[in-house]
Amino acid sequence: NLKNLINKAHPSDIAAAIEILKPFNREKLFKFMIEHNIEKAAEVLIELEEHLIKSILDLFDDETTAAILKLLSTDDAVAILDYIDDEEKKEKILQLIHDSEKVEEQLLYQDETAGRIMTTDFFSLNHNLTVKEAIEKLHQLEEKAEMVFYLYLVDDNQRLTGVMSLRQLLLSNPDAKLKEVMQKDIISVRVDTDQEEVARLVSQYDLLAIPVVDHDGKLVGIITVDDVIDIIKEEAAEDIYRLAGTSEEEILYKGHPFKIAKIRLPWLLPAFAGTFVVASLLDLISVKFSYFAIFVVFMPMINAAAGNIGIQSSTIMARELAVNEMEGSIWKEVFSTQFRVGVIIGILYALIAFTFSFILAKPVHLPKLIVSISVGIAMFIAIIISSVYGSFLPIFLKKMGVDPAVATGPFVAASNDILGTIIYFSVAYNIVHLLQ
Amino acid sequence: NLKNLINKAHPSDIAAAIEILKPFNREKLFKFMIEHNIEKAAEVLIELEEHLIKSILDLFDDETTAAILKLLSTDDAVAILDYIDDEEKKEKILQLIHDSEKVEEQLLYQDETAGRIMTTDFFSLNHNLTVKEAIEKLHQLEEKAEMVFYLYLVDDNQRLTGVMSLRQLLLSNPDAKLKEVMQKDIISVRVDTDQEEVARLVSQYDLLAIPVVDHDGKLVGIITVDDVIDIIKEEAAEDIYRLAGTSEEEILYKGHPFKIAKIRLPWLLPAFAGTFVVASLLDLISVKFSYFAIFVVFMPMINAAAGNIGIQSSTIMARELAVNEMEGSIWKEVFSTQFRVGVIIGILYALIAFTFSFILAKPVHLPKLIVSISVGIAMFIAIIISSVYGSFLPIFLKKMGVDPAVATGPFVAASNDILGTIIYFSVAYNIVHLLQ
Ligand SMILES: [Mg+2]
Ligand SMILES: [Mg+2]
Ligand SMILES: [Mg+2]
Ligand SMILES: [Mg+2]
Ligand SMILES: [Mg+2]
Ligand SMILES: [Mg+2]
Ligand SMILES: [Mg+2]
Ligand SMILES: [Mg+2]
Ligand SMILES: [Mg+2]
Ligand SMILES: [Mg+2]
Ligand SMILES: [Mg+2]
Ligand SMILES: [Mg+2]
Ligand SMILES: [Mg+2]
Repeated sequence: NLKNLINKAHPSDIAAAIEILKPFNREKLFKFMIEHNIEKAAEVLIELEEHLIKSILDLFDDETTAAILKLLSTDDAVAILDYIDDEEKKEKILQLIHDSEKVEEQLLYQDETAGRIMTTDFFSLNHNLTVKEAIEKLHQLEEKAEMVFYLYLVDDNQRLTGVMSLRQLLLSNPDAKLKEVMQKDIISVRVDTDQEEVARLVSQYDLLAIPVVDHDGKLVGIITVDDVIDIIKEEAAEDIYRLAGTSEEEILYKGHPFKIAKIRLPWLLPAFAGTFVVASLLDLISVKFSYFAIFVVFMPMINAAAGNIGIQSSTIMARELAVNEMEGSIWKEVFSTQFRVGVIIGILYALIAFTFSFILAKPVHLPKLIVSISVGIAMFIAIIISSVYGSFLPIFLKKMGVDPAVATGPFVAASNDILGTIIYFSVAYNIVHLLQ
Repeated sequence: NLKNLINKAHPSDIAAAIEILKPFNREKLFKFMIEHNIEKAAEVLIELEEHLIKSILDLFDDETTAAILKLLSTDDAVAILDYIDDEEKKEKILQLIHDSEKVEEQLLYQDETAGRIMTTDFFSLNHNLTVKEAIEKLHQLEEKAEMVFYLYLVDDNQRLTGVMSLRQLLLSNPDAKLKEVMQKDIISVRVDTDQEEVARLVSQYDLLAIPVVDHDGKLVGIITVDDVIDIIKEEAAEDIYRLAGTSEEEILYKGHPFKIAKIRLPWLLPAFAGTFVVASLLDLISVKFSYFAIFVVFMPMINAAAGNIGIQSSTIMARELAVNEMEGSIWKEVFSTQFRVGVIIGILYALIAFTFSFILAKPVHLPKLIVSISVGIAMFIAIIISSVYGSFLPIFLKKMGVDPAVATGPFVAASNDILGTIIYFSVAYNIVHLLQ
């Protein structure tokens, strides 16, 4: 029966099932879980998608919410509380949680820092204990503590002094003091370390958990590798959405097109404004340049080529900046490589564009050769400038304190169109006046 | 001194240092490590970037390479062997590795499957042993075995029957048989499971390692969470490069612009060919449509808007496809949401485009109103069609067996330009003939 099924199933499997249920059945199932197995309900809640967590929290009074939160480890309780936007409600729930100081303290740390995402339910021991005493302590340990694969060791002032694995503990002389056998080189983060740096360290040193210390070096929490995986996936998704000029929030608003439009417009409108500049330029050129109609035919070709190469260069550069520290000499190397790539592709594209436009153009008002030479030269220059501009932009954005990942969205496409249009018609105008 | 430093430093820190050294010093340092601490050299090697691994392997004779490989766990040995392109050399090295059957077998599994990336150096026990006997076995365990946080338990035929954590072992009655206390619900993968599915399972169930079984259910290896993190990062990077129309390989070829150009061209050229279609269309229209020059001014505006919205829709849809199973009803919901988003943004953009073109257009040959009504209506239609086309494309690609992540590269931009151009000039032509 259902009760049995719920008791046996993995929380994340129940969560996956809930996600495809209709809202009415979803609510019924969740209320059933709260009644018959509130521990499982709590574990399932934390596995749900953000918008479902919000809609399920709306179902319950503050007492039930507090009861659920008490069952979670502090990192998960903090995450759930973050979904409650109503500050008064949050305050009331916190008062209902016996022993809520830890959670309240954690909520004071900045979003996306180690202090905010750590769990304070971890296992640590005084380094003056013996191995035998430590094993006894392990026997008394409550179920909730996370990640008892590492033992974190502290001095009398709770300052982190060492770490050892459960296996090392098992293999050590029972009468040895922990501080004699523990490993003293510890990789740790501070409460204010950014979550991306946390993820980088865990991944670089292949850790299963990383300890978090406060400004006095006191051990205050740990971050486990499963949560680091979630950070890595979240940050990767963020970058992909930014590349496309939107945000992951959009996923939360299935069926709410107005909310989605509101998310997209800040990305779209600057680019839209950029195309006004292109239109104004073209309007000006169409009046001043009598061969406008002949040349404008090849403009989309040049702008698209330059735009695509600009995005390639920006993406590579943004990745390099994200992955490496990029000391002076390295970024010059990357930069010069991008330039030379531009030259190679530029020459190839110029030749193809020259040939294609020579075939397509009709010698009505101008000799074909003048049109196709202009197209070829403009293509070459536009590609090189886009390559360099695309590589430079992420560096510039990083210097300005902006995430270089935005360097490849619609905004860049628009500025590339403006650049491409100016280059193309300047070249065409000059060549016509030179050769005719 | 250097020897001391190398002995003490973490392999991934040495690897980071090596990456910024000049090739000459890099080689010297590596040779020094091989001489004085070959274990550390092996650990450092596996942490290096792909192109450095290749260039360092070139320094050594087959004997040294074999000696290094012997020190690595099998997943890392397999990964290193995969960097050796010369099949004969690979064969020779394999012969030099005493006990190389395991590695050779593993090389037969398909790239990016569980069998290929697993390590066969893991710890498993017969489930008929007692807890006390298991702890004794742990004491005899060699250093190389990975991830002794879980114990994997097998029957007399090596078939995986259960799992338990080291902590559970420690807390169990010493005289109990393992099969009485082990957990029998095991999440495992088969040798031919794709690495992305492996990563999904480890992440969903918050595992530290996942066991790999062969077609008879025999336990043949494990994949640890640190390697799963590398897979997740690699797959995320792959998607980002695809979005930009290039590949991660590009990073390996710093300073080799011809190789980079070769990587980019297969992405660029189909898009380039697409722009020939746009140019041919424009050429045709410029001859047939006497008001071409007036209307072409606003074409980049329409194409850019439609292109940006198409990319947003494709990205969201590709993500949905990657994250969810997308049963019938869900994708219809996503699809209809994208359509409605297109209508909202389309109306807004049409109004802005109408106003802007009314201000900019000069009433030379045509009334301003005819131009701006055409621009507005074309904008509306182009945006809706791009929204729908952009959402549909990833689904279509997935059905065709192509990774939907490619749905947002230069190719889509080009097809959007073609669509936009056709829509715009058809609308303009019809309105001119209708209203004049
Ligand atoms: Mg961040
Ligand atoms: Mg790692
Ligand atoms: Mg590693
Ligand atoms: Mg957690
Ligand atoms: Mg973020
Ligand atoms: Mg980021
Ligand atoms: Mg590996
Ligand atoms: Mg794959
Ligand atoms: Mg997880
Ligand atoms: Mg989790
Ligand atoms: Mg490994
Ligand atoms: Mg791959
Ligand atoms: Mg993939």
